[in-house]
Amino acid sequence: MATSRPTIYDVAKAAGVSKSLVSLVLRGAGGVSAASREAVERAIRDLDYRPSRAAAALAAGRTRLVGVLIDDYANPWFVDLLRGLDEVLSPGGYRLSVVDTATAAGVEDPVEGLLSMRADGIIVARDVPHVLLGDTAPPFVIAGTRADVPDGVDAVGNDDVLGARLATEHLLALGHREIGHLSVVGGAGQTRRESFLATMQDAEALARATAYRGPATERAGYDTSLALLREHPGVTAIFAANDVMAIGALGAARELGRDVPRDLSIVGYDNTALAQTRLIDLTTVDDDSVGVGREAGKLLRARLAGEDPVDVRRTLEPSLVVRGTTASLG
Amino acid sequence: MATSRPTIYDVAKAAGVSKSLVSLVLRGAGGVSAASREAVERAIRDLDYRPSRAAAALAAGRTRLVGVLIDDYANPWFVDLLRGLDEVLSPGGYRLSVVDTATAAGVEDPVEGLLSMRADGIIVARDVPHVLLGDTAPPFVIAGTRADVPDGVDAVGNDDVLGARLATEHLLALGHREIGHLSVVGGAGQTRRESFLATMQDAEALARATAYRGPATERAGYDTSLALLREHPGVTAIFAANDVMAIGALGAARELGRDVPRDLSIVGYDNTALAQTRLIDLTTVDDDSVGVGREAGKLLRARLAGEDPVDVRRTLEPSLVVRGTTASLG
Repeated sequence: MATSRPTIYDVAKAAGVSKSLVSLVLRGAGGVSAASREAVERAIRDLDYRPSRAAAALAAGRTRLVGVLIDDYANPWFVDLLRGLDEVLSPGGYRLSVVDTATAAGVEDPVEGLLSMRADGIIVARDVPHVLLGDTAPPFVIAGTRADVPDGVDAVGNDDVLGARLATEHLLALGHREIGHLSVVGGAGQTRRESFLATMQDAEALARATAYRGPATERAGYDTSLALLREHPGVTAIFAANDVMAIGALGAARELGRDVPRDLSIVGYDNTALAQTRLIDLTTVDDDSVGVGREAGKLLRARLAGEDPVDVRRTLEPSLVVRGTTASLG
Repeated sequence: MATSRPTIYDVAKAAGVSKSLVSLVLRGAGGVSAASREAVERAIRDLDYRPSRAAAALAAGRTRLVGVLIDDYANPWFVDLLRGLDEVLSPGGYRLSVVDTATAAGVEDPVEGLLSMRADGIIVARDVPHVLLGDTAPPFVIAGTRADVPDGVDAVGNDDVLGARLATEHLLALGHREIGHLSVVGGAGQTRRESFLATMQDAEALARATAYRGPATERAGYDTSLALLREHPGVTAIFAANDVMAIGALGAARELGRDVPRDLSIVGYDNTALAQTRLIDLTTVDDDSVGVGREAGKLLRARLAGEDPVDVRRTLEPSLVVRGTTASLG
């Protein structure tokens, strides 16, 4: 199959347009009619044209690739974030590629992967790795509440203080007076924990927050819930730092024979697809991950268009979604 | 922060080694002592050296990036696959980046994203997209059972015929005689369905396979299970094409008030982390995704080292994992 590789001239000829117009389309530049754009895209597909080498030069080294840096594929909160990002970035010709921290067993920082793939920009959906703060790193936007957001960096998140208060006040309103909280590491986790403690203090209720500060996993949710419920048998409700931890808590309740929601109420955070399943049916805080992705995508797009750093901090409003895992204290 | 960008010479100086040795480390070449390698890696970190431009030239255009192409982030079966891949590829300096099909709402093939990021190689964990068959595509290895595997392509999967038979025979051995199957699109789905039907025929039992041929999602599992159980009230067990569909089936059982496993047994496929949770505790087929990732990574590594295409087909043996969602027909 040693056919010669199609060139940008072949694409221009097949599309019936000039080579310059093809390069405009490849760059995702404006000022191209929809009809011309479609003709070029069709020709690219028909010819199986691979613009990676040629177009890269044309586009002055731009890959039109946006890297998304997450903690752990096993925590599905990022899936909605990707939907929002794609919605905003895909029409500009950008594509998303995801790199996680949890998989990489090697000594090298997984962020190097994003740098080596020459992403035009990065969405940071975890605490900000140090290597991104060097002046040679590509533009990035933070998605979600993160610890130590540096000056000059755009960030979009939901209001975790409000979200955690909504969750806690929901449990208080149901009559619960001794409430557990499953903590996790990271900026969002820390903020939710503090808001939980403040809300409980205002209500003069008994707060039982776990000392755990590791990654948010189902296993951690299970283990810390078991310990919490054994140490504090008076706990009648748990607010978990996120849905994955809450699924662990549901497992612990099952293990201890405590019926949810009759004997124990559980609230998560993130409104993941799992929380929405009929099986799990989890009361949780909807942090509008799609909206966070959409706003973060817009900010990154502006940066990639060469707009000056604007140090935008955008905070979306979360809402409580009441489902089947919470009930009045019987 | 307009400091001048560090160069490979700065790294060599800081590490106390020659520039050639730095480039060997950047290429991930062999023959470098652990001490030298560590010194270079430390200097790279300390200087915040970004080898993306310089090293790319040194490495003759290699990015040391492996793209992983999946269907849908919401189906977590790929998480173990990534663990296996990382285990084998990370020591060679390769990094993984994942691209899915489900997120991409745009008209462009998401595979173009993998090509534009100039991955050295690709792991295809879905049916093979046509664009990869062009002679300009990078080397790739198929992970999982796929429809129409082309000649000259390496592929690793588990034995889906055996896996589906193990699941079906388990239900038959428990006394179930009218068993539903939740079908999905794709090579693995098709193979599991056919093996289910053959096993049921051999046992002269009543097979109720759904007509659904769309993507495997929890929602599809829920919808098709509801329809199946309403149309065939005599069904006492369901074998789902994978764990995500099985979670939908568990939700449908809950909706219909059918206790699992007392009134309905359910088996999945993949042994995902979700199946292993105390909450879901799903009887399923372990298709050794870590092992599939490991073998696929080894084959890709061989291809990237310039070994001739060998057309390897490797099939790993699945095993049944009995948990809490299956029981004897009461």
